[in-house]
Amino acid sequence: MRTFKLTLAYVGTNFAGWQSQVAQRTVQVVLQQTLAKITRQKDVHAIASGRTDAGVHALGQVVSVVLDWERPAETLQRALASELPRDLVVIDAEEAPPDFHAITSATGKQYQYRIHDGRVADVFRRQYTWHCFTQLDEAVMHRAAQALAGRHDFSSFEATGSPRRSSVRTISHISVSRDTDHEHLIYIDVSADGFLYKMVRTIVGSLVEVGRGTQDESWIGQILAQQDRNAAGPTSPSQGLFLVKVDY
Amino acid sequence: MRTFKLTLAYVGTNFAGWQSQVAQRTVQVVLQQTLAKITRQKDVHAIASGRTDAGVHALGQVVSVVLDWERPAETLQRALASELPRDLVVIDAEEAPPDFHAITSATGKQYQYRIHDGRVADVFRRQYTWHCFTQLDEAVMHRAAQALAGRHDFSSFEATGSPRRSSVRTISHISVSRDTDHEHLIYIDVSADGFLYKMVRTIVGSLVEVGRGTQDESWIGQILAQQDRNAAGPTSPSQGLFLVKVDY
Repeated sequence: MRTFKLTLAYVGTNFAGWQSQVAQRTVQVVLQQTLAKITRQKDVHAIASGRTDAGVHALGQVVSVVLDWERPAETLQRALASELPRDLVVIDAEEAPPDFHAITSATGKQYQYRIHDGRVADVFRRQYTWHCFTQLDEAVMHRAAQALAGRHDFSSFEATGSPRRSSVRTISHISVSRDTDHEHLIYIDVSADGFLYKMVRTIVGSLVEVGRGTQDESWIGQILAQQDRNAAGPTSPSQGLFLVKVDY
Repeated sequence: MRTFKLTLAYVGTNFAGWQSQVAQRTVQVVLQQTLAKITRQKDVHAIASGRTDAGVHALGQVVSVVLDWERPAETLQRALASELPRDLVVIDAEEAPPDFHAITSATGKQYQYRIHDGRVADVFRRQYTWHCFTQLDEAVMHRAAQALAGRHDFSSFEATGSPRRSSVRTISHISVSRDTDHEHLIYIDVSADGFLYKMVRTIVGSLVEVGRGTQDESWIGQILAQQDRNAAGPTSPSQGLFLVKVDY
């Protein structure tokens, strides 16, 4: 048995997230079934760096899995390419040290949230953006977001019903920028050592209030200080969120 | 009754093309039903600049339609925005002269075909590109394509079973280029005064043979000279094709 590190990209639209408690189409179930078929292994247990919610996309989700597979990792990747459905692909496969674990070995993660703020919807981007009908001020959003950079208790931005040992995380980078080629595309990039449940989507929902002018630039810092989820803005929709990269 | 010119964008994936003979979900049916609902008009007949096949996308399809609508065109567009399904949007609506007709008034059209030639599939582009697993030589494809520029009989690139009065068309521009930001995206842009049935897809299928090195650069000109569909390469899949613009 060898340990493999698989890097996945998936379109979240038709998945009920990475993992789900009921019988639904999840990335984990589809991947495990396909790996079991390829390796003829009875039980395959794939561990992702973190669960992505239903509808959330991944450009670089990382999975650790122990497999009864003697051939090169590249051969495994090719076999997966022909067996996996059209909305899931393994972009990299490599053998990892036996102690590699997708969750505990991770040192950081990078997310991107995409907003389309054109007056007219873009049918080709609807599946991959949150469409905000009014134009947002991305410069003021960027300035407001800087209040979140650094080590803080982010409990104001954590969805309720998800107790963790600590709500303290360190955001090493947060930026809001408009696409240089597309006048109506806004990217919110956030890198941290870890994220709380729905943290990025709650940050984005709050930043959009600032970008619309509904709230003042200083509001984001005020939410953070209150350590109360009720202080923050609404959770933004899942289809704009991409897990970009996991660091090890 | 007033004549309107509507410009549509749609994701072709879940449409059986613009028009279809059997009871299927077509762009025409969805648009006409929605217009009938909004205007409370019994019969709405929308005419597109040309039929797009099942799976083909549009960035700027143009439709002419006569409507019992007294309010501004912009109000009609807003009403359509809230009623149309997520894969169809009216990006522009304006009143047109009574003699405006989407087919007969058109003077030219522009199509773009998109190819992804990365070794690993891109799940986010699969719906919008033809995935060619081997890397293509876009420079040789571009040179080969220039044999098609100008006024020619394109019957070699016309799908069988589609007799037209003439197979002569004028291609004013044809180019093959690689995206400056994305190393595996290739665009084939073609502008002409009109197109034969499946003409762009047959041109692309033939150019890819050249790009793969299966056929020589001079092959495209040889196909053209033969005026025989059997001389050309295979028809490329519909999901890579975009109707970009119709000129009037």
